[in-house]
Formats: sequence, C-alpha cells, structure tokens
Amino acid sequence: MNVAAGPVAILAGSGALPGLIAERLAAAGRPHRILAFRGFAEPALRARADAVVGLLDVKGAVARLDSWRPDCVTLAGGVTRPRAAALLDAYAFLRNRDEIAAVVSGGDDNVLRGVITLLEERGLRLVGVPDIAPELLAEPVVYGARAPSGADRASITAGFALLDAVAPFDIGQAAIVHGRRVLAVEGPEGTDRMLARVRALGGLFLRRERQPGVLVKGPKRGQDLRVDLPAIGPRTIVNAARAGLAGVAVASGLTLVIDRPATVAAADRAGLFLVGIPPRDRMESS
Amino acid sequence: MNVAAGPVAILAGSGALPGLIAERLAAAGRPHRILAFRGFAEPALRARADAVVGLLDVKGAVARLDSWRPDCVTLAGGVTRPRAAALLDAYAFLRNRDEIAAVVSGGDDNVLRGVITLLEERGLRLVGVPDIAPELLAEPVVYGARAPSGADRASITAGFALLDAVAPFDIGQAAIVHGRRVLAVEGPEGTDRMLARVRALGGLFLRRERQPGVLVKGPKRGQDLRVDLPAIGPRTIVNAARAGLAGVAVASGLTLVIDRPATVAAADRAGLFLVGIPPRDRMESS
Repeated sequence: MNVAAGPVAILAGSGALPGLIAERLAAAGRPHRILAFRGFAEPALRARADAVVGLLDVKGAVARLDSWRPDCVTLAGGVTRPRAAALLDAYAFLRNRDEIAAVVSGGDDNVLRGVITLLEERGLRLVGVPDIAPELLAEPVVYGARAPSGADRASITAGFALLDAVAPFDIGQAAIVHGRRVLAVEGPEGTDRMLARVRALGGLFLRRERQPGVLVKGPKRGQDLRVDLPAIGPRTIVNAARAGLAGVAVASGLTLVIDRPATVAAADRAGLFLVGIPPRDRMESS
Repeated sequence: MNVAAGPVAILAGSGALPGLIAERLAAAGRPHRILAFRGFAEPALRARADAVVGLLDVKGAVARLDSWRPDCVTLAGGVTRPRAAALLDAYAFLRNRDEIAAVVSGGDDNVLRGVITLLEERGLRLVGVPDIAPELLAEPVVYGARAPSGADRASITAGFALLDAVAPFDIGQAAIVHGRRVLAVEGPEGTDRMLARVRALGGLFLRRERQPGVLVKGPKRGQDLRVDLPAIGPRTIVNAARAGLAGVAVASGLTLVIDRPATVAAADRAGLFLVGIPPRDRMESS
C-alpha cells in the first residue's frame, strides 16, 4: 500500500474541497476516483464523479470501494450529521446495533472513529489532506497586506490557549478573543454561526472599542486530521469582517485554506489580517 | 463594621433581584437604602428607591453613599456594560485615565474589580447575596417533581468539568452538554441567548435523539460572588425547555434562583428537572 502514489478514492461531500483534492491529484498524475454523496457533493463534481450514492447507502458505497480497490480513501467536504436512528438503520447490516448506538451517542469524534474502523476493517486506509494534498494547508506566514498588531498577537496567544483548554471536551475548533475577553467558543454550530453571534454581540456593547477581536482556528488536540480538518475560506473572512474582527489566525500545517487566492483577496478587501500560526507560537498559556 | 447587621445600601440595576434583597432585609428588620440606576431598575423599585441616578453618574452615586454612610454596599441586578469611552469619561474625575483604560480593556472581571477598588478606597465594604440574603441561593437538592437520570448526572459532571477548564479565560458561567457532546459554552451573550442557539441547533441535527441535553450553570473559579452571581429564573427554565433540554443543574450555594416558586413551577410544567449540585459533585474531571 503506497499512500504517496497509489490510487485514491475520494468520498465527496459538499463544498469545494473534494474538487480541490481531485485537481491536486490530477496535477500530480495520481490515479483517483470520486464517489459523490447525493444531496451533498456540488453539481459540477457530481457530474464528473465515478459514482453517486446516498449518504446512508453504506452498502452501495462499500460495494464501489470493493470493486475499485483503491490504495487509500479520503473523506472530503461536508455532510450533515444524520439522525441517530437513520445511522443505526444504515449501518445495521454491517454491525451490531448496540455497538453503533454507543458510537452515535458519543461526540462527533466518536462517529468518525466508527467510520474509520469500518473502513479499516475492510482493508481500506483512510488518508487526509495532510497526506495527499498538503499544499492546501495554511503555511506559517502572514498572508495579504495586513499583519497582526502586538495586541492582536496577544489575543491570538490567548485564543489558542483557550482552544487547548477545551480540547478534552470534544469542542473548540475555533474561538473569538478580544483583548483578554473571550467572546465565543465554537460549538457544533460552526464558525460562520459563531461569527454571526459575535456580530450580534457587537451591537450590544462592543461597538467603537479600540481593539477589535480575532478569530483563532485550529484542530482540537487529538483530532483526526484525516477526517476532520479545520477550514477557512472567503466566506469566513467576509463573516469575520461583518463581526468587526481585526483578523483571522489559523494553525499552520493543520488548517485548510479553501481557495487561497480568493481568501487572501477577501482579507485585503476587508482590511483584515490572515495569518498562519506555527506550533511554537500556539503552545503558551495565557 | 458589621456585615451581618448594619445598614446596607442597595445599588439597584434591572430585574427582580434588588427587590428580593430589599424584601429579605426588611423581613430581617435590617436597615437599608436603595440607590436605583435610571433606565435599569424596575419601575416599582424605582418608585420606592431612596435615590435614582444615572449609571454613569459616578459623582452622584458616590455623593449619596457618602451622605448615607452605610456599613456595606451591594450591587444587585443587571446593567449593560457601557462603552469604554463612556466609562473613561465617567470615572475621569476619580482616577487616572490610563489606569481606568487598563481596567476597561480587560475582561468583565477587571471592570468589576475596578469598581470594587473604588468603593473600598472610600471605606465602603462591598457585600453580596451570599453575605446578606443566602436564602436566595440554590440548595443542594432536587427541586420539583423530576429528578435527573444517571445519564443526566453524567452530563452534569462533564458540564461542570468543562466550566472548570475554561475558568482561567474569564468565561463559562454556563454550558450545555448532551451526553458527552458539548453543545455550547456561554460567552458574553448570556444564558438565554446560548439556549436560543442550542434550540436552533436542535433543528439541524439533534431532533429525536434519545438523550436531551442539560444546562449547567455556576460561578467561574475566582469569580467575585459579591458582584457577579450566576442566576436562573422562570425564563431560564422556559428557554431550556424550548431548547429541548432535560433539565437544569446549578452550583448550590453559589447560584441565585430568582423567584424560586415560579421557577420550580415552570420546571414542573415543562417536565424538566432542576437540581442544585453541591461542591463534592462538581469537582470530578470528565
């Protein structure tokens, strides 16, 4: 099994990522097949997919993978967490019902671990963007025209320390910090909704304060980056600007920047900084 | 100075608490005066207040306190955090501008510490509900008709461990936990908005799961309970029910239950449990 060069199966959910990965693999001359999830994968991708299945058609998906025999599989793009009952039904033919129920009642990490185990038991190796398309990850650099100020750097440090503190609780891919005040910790609602919340807070009492907040984003400690990679894109920047933030800081090497040119252009247009923070600058406690 | 029996000045913001404290003090035959903040104190309380001042009329408030000479002062009820610039102006006659700016740019705790220092420098002792009306705090009991299940107890334990982990970051009076999943950590938006957020999440992917979530609430570690006491009331219960939660758990002895009979009745009506959790059950890590 050769992760660096063998054929890859892309299980494609929503968003631009599955297409970006396919592009990278095509550019590298690496064989790949696309299994698109109906109702999630974008139309353009679905049109060039090798197969299209329902998210809960586990049997159909497994049959395709069994016939394609890829070296490795990657899960890319978004899917909505299905209801527990639907998951139970879908996986029932493969697994003991109680065992699945135990997986489903845990955190998102648990569901993912269950899927990984299922794949690996069938001899399929799960890989992620860091393995097959690391060029898509943030680098430890200041992107665009604006750099974080000293105060922004302090907010960034406090933000990553906070994410570290909540990591054991299976939350906290992102937070918004404003000076020494934490304005939001991301829950299952996702980054865009968290930004909308802080935008609403701004109306309450943040308006006109001198130091705007900063969005920090990175993986949770122990997060499996093959299946759950933090990501930002142009929409993140636009929403951060609407929330009145000074900029966005992501963990370099561990965070996807979807459509980098458009993301950097959005930051420049809005006057926000966008910076990749290397591990050495993410570990201090506040 | 006799905290247990001397005259008390109540600096009254919004909500029922200032009136409840005044009632408790009256019942105990303890002398007290009410200084109501215009635009915040409820009309009924304002009508029987000894004085009404603007929130930023620091000079006026200090003059009243100087003339009343109470043994102690209590800050009760809500006020909106004023804009930094307004705070700077209001306190400018008392303090060095840079010093105030340093206070304002910190967390809410910092602003409160600044106010406390100002009062104490004038010989006024700040006291809180635990000192003068402990009957208003939650007891370590199950209120109402419904008790938390074993699964609810596990959520409660995980929730308090989470609050403990985020305590150093000046957030986290409350969280919502669902099995081992954390659905929300409270930021400056407050408990009601956090509950509304989880209600919206429910529409996304929580509907029909068997184990509903639990709201946990208590003070942050190191929180000054004289000025910033976690509180719940009937509205909290109604909002928790709308968010689909199983119940509400608060730190006993450290959380205010506003209008207890109405709060317990609301819990019974909605089929939610309401429980005070003693310290020995709040310290385990999840």
